[in-house]
Amino acid sequence: MRILLSNDDGINAPGIRAMQHGLKQLGDVIVVAPEGEQSAVGHAITISEPLRVNEVYASETLFGYSVNGTPADCVKIALKALLDGRPDIIVSGVNTGANVATNIIYSGTVSAATEGTLLGIPSLAVSLDTYTKPDFSAAVSFAVKTVSVMVKNGLPQGTLLNINVPALKEPEIKGVKVCRQSDRVFQVAFEKRSDLRGVDYYWQGGYMDNDDKDPKTDIKALEEGYITVTPIQYDLTNHSFMDELTNWEWKF
Amino acid sequence: MRILLSNDDGINAPGIRAMQHGLKQLGDVIVVAPEGEQSAVGHAITISEPLRVNEVYASETLFGYSVNGTPADCVKIALKALLDGRPDIIVSGVNTGANVATNIIYSGTVSAATEGTLLGIPSLAVSLDTYTKPDFSAAVSFAVKTVSVMVKNGLPQGTLLNINVPALKEPEIKGVKVCRQSDRVFQVAFEKRSDLRGVDYYWQGGYMDNDDKDPKTDIKALEEGYITVTPIQYDLTNHSFMDELTNWEWKF
Repeated sequence: MRILLSNDDGINAPGIRAMQHGLKQLGDVIVVAPEGEQSAVGHAITISEPLRVNEVYASETLFGYSVNGTPADCVKIALKALLDGRPDIIVSGVNTGANVATNIIYSGTVSAATEGTLLGIPSLAVSLDTYTKPDFSAAVSFAVKTVSVMVKNGLPQGTLLNINVPALKEPEIKGVKVCRQSDRVFQVAFEKRSDLRGVDYYWQGGYMDNDDKDPKTDIKALEEGYITVTPIQYDLTNHSFMDELTNWEWKF
Repeated sequence: MRILLSNDDGINAPGIRAMQHGLKQLGDVIVVAPEGEQSAVGHAITISEPLRVNEVYASETLFGYSVNGTPADCVKIALKALLDGRPDIIVSGVNTGANVATNIIYSGTVSAATEGTLLGIPSLAVSLDTYTKPDFSAAVSFAVKTVSVMVKNGLPQGTLLNINVPALKEPEIKGVKVCRQSDRVFQVAFEKRSDLRGVDYYWQGGYMDNDDKDPKTDIKALEEGYITVTPIQYDLTNHSFMDELTNWEWKF
């Protein structure tokens, strides 16, 4: 099996190193990842700047290729310019920090897997729900199992898997839940500061609201200690509103 | 009526200037837009760098505020730090170049409207299907009409309108079609070049495939000379696959 591995935390992040080590037991792993952190870049691609690719070594072995672009750029350039032949599977992660609820649309981790899906390759994104002292072993172990199951069962066209793993030791994880994306929204807040020249600038921060009462969502199950698996697609049309909208008084 | 106006081509782009001029007949227009071009940034947000805001003048009048960030950043900072009170409507555009089919996920123009929708404000994105000698008058005229209809009829929660206008004189436009997003995929290709030091780099380009035979899509109607209106939402869960996925052999 040939696996393309990417992420949004950058090629030197510990999460992608742990994942590469785990996936090697399944076959050849080719790493193509951003040269630096690309968190929250969403599905950005680089069209106004040239892309550069560099080999990255781990001790004396080639670890993979860094790209001065986004996760979606990495998947595109891997498939269309760097690799000989197509990979069987694309994995993105392990990301440091969960990718759940409506925050998925900001996620570079998920966008790498979405790009893989757009290009017709079964893909999954894997994130670990912590920013401090991450232990990636449970996330890697579950990703390896999931790749095998994905290969066996197949995914519907245009669908990828978004996996989130709680920051628990393996025996403490309660199990696996397939669940929908929560519609909770990140409530952004800005902190205004002044730099040393007295010029104002803003930092972006905030918190997730608590408006989703349905217990069957990704964010809720993750909080309860479950690994969450959410099937993601990219058809954005609100089909249920099409008929009503067609009856609006359109004229030009 | 208070209208927040943004875009992804930047605050000095002719499309946002034309739109500001048109929307003024409906009420107060506050412009908050990227300081430079942000095309294809998708739903990126800026969390690792500080944001700066500057006033931009048109002759001696304040035209709006520039932000050194993405379209989604602009909408967030406008609502949470710059404006007194919430706008009634958010408009993004006029973008130079169509935003149709699966390319919508790369669109900064649409992401500004998506961010507005996430924050609970009726929003629309407007794009003109040309990159050369754009005449924004039909797009602006249709956007002004649509804002009035949106205010009257309302939109379902979590839904925005994505409008694309053909590059035709107004009398040549065939009419308005409400249509779904095409599932055609942009087939990326990379051109490898060498810089003056002999170091390789890549440009990203390509073409849209022709795999969508359904005539009722945005891309097809736009090609035929219609203005297209597509209702867009951001629930990415593939609900129809949930039951089957739940029955996979999950264990941890």
